[in-house]
This record gives sequence, C-alpha cells and structure tokens, in this order.
Amino acid sequence: MSEVIATYRLFDKGGQFEKKAESIALGLTIGSWTDLPHLEQEQLKKHKGRVVSIKETGRETIEGREADITIAYPAANFSADLPAILVTVFGKLSLDGVIRLIDLDFSSNLAKWFPGPKFGVQGIRELTGAYDRPLVMSIFKGVIGRDLSYMEKQLKGQLDGGIDIVKDDEILFENKLTPFEERLKLGKQVIAESGKKALYAVNLTGRTCDLKEKARRGIELGATAYLFNVFAYGLDMLQELAEDRDIPVPIMAHPALSGAFTSAPHHGISTELMLGKLVRMAGADFTLFPSPYGSVALERPAALGIAEMALEDSMYKQTFPVPSAGIHPGLVPVLYDDFGMNSIINAGGGVHGHPNGAAGGGRAFRQAVDAVVAGQTIEEAAQQHEDLRVAFELWGTGK
Amino acid sequence: MSEVIATYRLFDKGGQFEKKAESIALGLTIGSWTDLPHLEQEQLKKHKGRVVSIKETGRETIEGREADITIAYPAANFSADLPAILVTVFGKLSLDGVIRLIDLDFSSNLAKWFPGPKFGVQGIRELTGAYDRPLVMSIFKGVIGRDLSYMEKQLKGQLDGGIDIVKDDEILFENKLTPFEERLKLGKQVIAESGKKALYAVNLTGRTCDLKEKARRGIELGATAYLFNVFAYGLDMLQELAEDRDIPVPIMAHPALSGAFTSAPHHGISTELMLGKLVRMAGADFTLFPSPYGSVALERPAALGIAEMALEDSMYKQTFPVPSAGIHPGLVPVLYDDFGMNSIINAGGGVHGHPNGAAGGGRAFRQAVDAVVAGQTIEEAAQQHEDLRVAFELWGTGK
Ligand SMILES: [Mg+2]
Ligand SMILES: [Mg+2]
Repeated sequence: MSEVIATYRLFDKGGQFEKKAESIALGLTIGSWTDLPHLEQEQLKKHKGRVVSIKETGRETIEGREADITIAYPAANFSADLPAILVTVFGKLSLDGVIRLIDLDFSSNLAKWFPGPKFGVQGIRELTGAYDRPLVMSIFKGVIGRDLSYMEKQLKGQLDGGIDIVKDDEILFENKLTPFEERLKLGKQVIAESGKKALYAVNLTGRTCDLKEKARRGIELGATAYLFNVFAYGLDMLQELAEDRDIPVPIMAHPALSGAFTSAPHHGISTELMLGKLVRMAGADFTLFPSPYGSVALERPAALGIAEMALEDSMYKQTFPVPSAGIHPGLVPVLYDDFGMNSIINAGGGVHGHPNGAAGGGRAFRQAVDAVVAGQTIEEAAQQHEDLRVAFELWGTGK
Repeated sequence: MSEVIATYRLFDKGGQFEKKAESIALGLTIGSWTDLPHLEQEQLKKHKGRVVSIKETGRETIEGREADITIAYPAANFSADLPAILVTVFGKLSLDGVIRLIDLDFSSNLAKWFPGPKFGVQGIRELTGAYDRPLVMSIFKGVIGRDLSYMEKQLKGQLDGGIDIVKDDEILFENKLTPFEERLKLGKQVIAESGKKALYAVNLTGRTCDLKEKARRGIELGATAYLFNVFAYGLDMLQELAEDRDIPVPIMAHPALSGAFTSAPHHGISTELMLGKLVRMAGADFTLFPSPYGSVALERPAALGIAEMALEDSMYKQTFPVPSAGIHPGLVPVLYDDFGMNSIINAGGGVHGHPNGAAGGGRAFRQAVDAVVAGQTIEEAAQQHEDLRVAFELWGTGK
C-alpha cells in the first residue's frame, strides 16, 4: 500500500482513543463513512484513512490518559511533496488541542519522492579529506557589525588550527560590510591559500524565490557549502535546493525557529522527526541541533534520536549529525561516546575563546579527536599537546 | 530608530529577568559588549540589541515567575525579509527552554518592506458586490475521491444559496479526478452561469518554486482567489505571491500546521501574531482561524485578538478575519457580536448538512446575516424564512 503512517501522542480523560482515532482517520481524509451508500463506500475506499494501532503509554497527566495512535493516510490523497503530506497529517489536527506528531513513516515507493542528501557523510568525508574520525567544525564569532578583514582573520585562524568546516552564524544576513558574494570570494581565497580541503558554509538567505538563483551565483564564485535556515522557509525549499543540479555543494540545515514547534512537551512535532528524519529526506547533508551539554540544551534522548534518524539505514545517504552549543575540547570524549565516528564536533566559543586564538582552539579540538579515536585518554594527550592542556585549564575536561 | 521590537513571555525561578534579557539582547546581536575595547563598542553600538522593558505579570508556574520582556533589534542586523527577522528574534531563542514570542513591532520604515493585502476588506467587498454586511463563505465537503461533477453540484448549490465565497478544502491537492486546472475551469463556468459576483478560492499547492508559475497559469484559466497553506511554505512565500502583479486575485491564508507552534501555552509563537499581524503584513487578504465555538476551538481572546490585528489601523489594507469550524446559522448573532461587520461567516457542515441542501444552507446563512444587520432577531427572521427555520430545528439558535 502507498501510504504515509503518522504517529501521534495525545490525551483523553475518558480514554476513548478508538473513537478519537477513527474521527482523525476519517476527518483528515474522506470526512464520513458509515452514512455513505455502499456504492460510494466502494468509490472512496482507497482514500479512507486507516487506524493502524492505539497504544496507551500507561502515563497520565491533567489532560488525561496518554496514548500513541497511528494512522495511515493513502497516497491517493496528496501530491508528492512535504507541504501536502504535512497538511494532510497535521494541518487541521495541529489546532486540535493537546496533540503531538511524533513520527511519520513513508512506504518505500513514497520515500522515493524525496532526494535525501546529495553528498551525505561519505561525500563530505571526500570533500574534506577527513576519514576515520569525527569532523571538526567551527562558527564565526561576533561578526555582526564587523568587516571582511575581521572575518578573514577568523577564517585563517580556524583553518590554520585544522578545522574541517567553518560556518557562518545563522544570524548573518545580507549586509554592507560582509555581503554574501564578498564572503564567498574571501572564503575561496583563504581556503586556496591554506592548501587544505576545508568547507566554508555560507548562510544562504533572502527572499524565497531568489534562493536558487542566489545559490547558483554563489557556486560560480566558489561556494563550497551552504548554511540554510530551513525552518524559516519550509522543508520543501530545502528539498528544492538539494534537488538542484546547479547547486553541487552540501547543505547544512540550521535548527533556528524549530524550537517553536518542537520544544513544548505535548504539542507540535517531535525534534527527532523534524531535525533527524525529515531534514534528511528533504536533502540536508548536515543537521545541526542543540547538544545535550550546553546551556541551550536538548534532552539527551532527543539529541541521540536525531543522530539515529540522520544515520540509520535507509534509501538515502546519511546526514551528518552536528550537536552544537556549549562544546569545548574537554567534551570530545563524551561527544565521541554519544555520537560516534560519524558526527561533527562543532564549537564557537570553544574555538575562538582559546588563549592561543582560533588556531589554538582548532588544534586543541583536533588533538582531542585524534586522542579519542586512537583510544588514548584526553588527559594523556594533553601531556603531549600544549593547546589541549591550555583548553583544559580554561574549560575543564568535562568531568 | 529602525528596529523590530520583540516581546517574549518567559519564566525564571529566581526572577533574574534583567540578566536574562541582557543575555538575549546581546546573544542575538553582537555577542558580547562589556569586555570589548571602547573603539569596538563605538563600532558595534548600532548593531547592539536593547532591552526595552521587563514586566513581571505577577503569575507564577512551576517554571518560575512569569515576565514579559521586550527587546529591540536594530534593522542594521537583518535583511528586508521575514525569514531574516524571525531567525534574528526567535531563531536560536526558540530552542532555549520555556519561552514564547508574543508580539513583534516594526518601526514604520521597516513596516514598509511588507506589502499587506492586495485587496483587503474593501477590495473583496468590491469583488463580491457585498457591502454593509458580513460576507458568507463555505467550503466544499468530502471532495477527496470525488469527481468534477460532484464538485460542480456542490458549487452550484452554494452559489444558488447566495454564498459569496467558496473555498477548496485545504487537504485537496493535485489529483486525477479534480486537477487544479479543471477545478479552475469549472469554477469560472459555474460562476459565470450563476450571474453572481462570487469568488472561488482554489487551493494553490505543490512544490515551492512552482507556485508562482502555477498561480499565474491559474489566473489565465479564470482563478478568482487562491487558498494557500502558508505555514507549510513559510510566510515569505505568501509575501512572494502577494507581491506578484501577475497574480491579481485575493489570497486566503489557511491556518493548517500553525497549531504546531501556536497551541502550546508557553512555547512557540502567539496565535494573534502569526494569524493576525504577520499574515496581514505578508499579504493575506483573508485569514482563517478556528472560531471560539466549535469542537476544534480557539480560546475567545485569541480569536478576537487575531481579528483585531487583521483589522486595526495600519499602513496596510485590512485582512478579512474568517472564524471557522463549527459554524451554523444559529451562531450568526454571536459571530456578529464578536467579529462585527468586517468579518466572514464560514461554514462547511452548516451549509452542506442543511435539509434543503447546500442552497438551503446558503440561504439560511444569508437570511440570518440580513436579520442581524437589520437589527432583527434571528427568531423573528425564521418566521419569514423557511430555510432559516429548518436550520434552527437541526442545529438550534446558539442559545
Ligand atoms: Mg549561531
Ligand atoms: Mg478543511
């Protein structure tokens, strides 16, 4: 059967979940059933939503007993795009009280509608020349109001320190001091001068219908990757960029604004579904999300769940999970434990705040990564590496 | 000053709102301040976020004391588009615990960046020839899996009954039985044959980068209005359509999916801001939202708040508020009391479920509307009008 299967978590004081599930399955598809003549039932059968399962979790809140209900929506009801699918499964329903969309499963012929990442984990390893270890990424810091020479210094420092991927801050938009095109030219030049295989993810911003053209122009100027605030534009716009053959660089999905629909406990859409499964289907090569360690933190199961969905076996290439915020070199062992080889260690302050500058911060991260991959403790590594030792003095060893 | 002023509702157990507000104002703009040399402070001053006010509400939850804090973001930090503004004011912050974006104010030079509705309340009155009364709108019912002749019958019935505007169901996508182009041709023909000045809002769906072209093609086929699932695509895509001179018809913003970020009490974005203020700025001629009366209901203050923001004095044309769901003719007096002359009475089941068919349902609504506008009670009107009397027998008089 061609269908999308949605799982919702909801509550009912009377525990009347069968009735609720039936009303969703009908209300979001053909509207009514039992009162239809037999002939019309035959005609509409293949459009009818179907209750797949109802499982009470055993928990109870002031909203009532909690249950996960699963409903199948026939593909005959929607077109081959995520807006149609999301509106079908959670359009009106998102407005219907305390309910959360926690998962979507696509039958394999529907999953083929979506591109997945263009490069994925393996492709990005080839682009960066970084095999057999987690990659190290860093963010420009405090660039609003600064000029190109400030960015140039930061970029050089980061590349000198061995950072694999540098990204714009997601709040850096078109501006006179560091316009998109100038940043791209700068990035191309600094990377070339460094002699390294690094990527610089430039923030692709602006009006929706200009994005493709802007991204293509950026490619001509030497863009090596794009950062994209997907949730300000919609998942389908990410897919549009991912599918465009004239934008042959990896795309990094930023979670900005996603908290508006993932953060509430019993409303909205699950973090794992959005930042793990759906951004991967839509074509993100990287997915950024709050690490479970910093001050802006995600609960550990949600963060691990994103990484799992980004990497699990599927028809798509793998999306690199990038747990972000609050990362310093002392956290590399726990990051490696939690997220493993196929993840990216991403830091802002933990690179730029290093007493030996961004280059020192980059080196400290690379030293920590090399240590954990080699099975060495970071304390041992710090005895050989001055930058790592200095980092631990400042930020500790995460213990 | 050119700035966007954001108001957030948040919680703090220690009530340390000054500190939190300062950290937002800096964290979402230039990053740091007190540790910067004087020269750099001078250079960055015009990019620095500013705490405007902090007001404790006096309420307290398990999250701590509640306060509304207001922060101004300089326009120098973002480009002239809603994605940039939303990412600036609530991108990372949406992921930062229990916090809700409750309002945005734009200084008047920034408000000019946005088009507002192309037609607005007055323009739609001219298009429909309906002055000095609330308009009456209805929705096709149960059209998934049905063919064009089924839609034709429904459309004729609705127009016969005096409905001003008919809209597609938001879950009707591209499909073989009733494709977009065929629906448009049908609509054009049936409206022409009716001899009435009615609008038919066709659901504009599909891939993001095809929407403009599809809408323009639809205009050539006789489209009179578009329904748009704006929250599946992003507010900027609505603005793209509204700004396009080759799409000279009103656009109806549907609230599908908006509940994912408006429904939780202390997370996400306020309903009034999204469905009232921002869809108007972006160019919606109509804004649909759950009425406070049905089973999928919005709290009354939020519903009234949407209508207020849709209609309040501003540099934009007015957006027609369309409280929807659970509407039958007996609710017309309370709708008129709550939403007044400049609103649209919108019904699905309350039109199609009428014992005299959709035409009877349409007439009953028009009879109720004429009565309340004339200062007559609907009970008096029902003595003169059979369709209204029958409606009250079925659904009551809302008392
Ligand atoms: Mg950032
Ligand atoms: Mg509907």
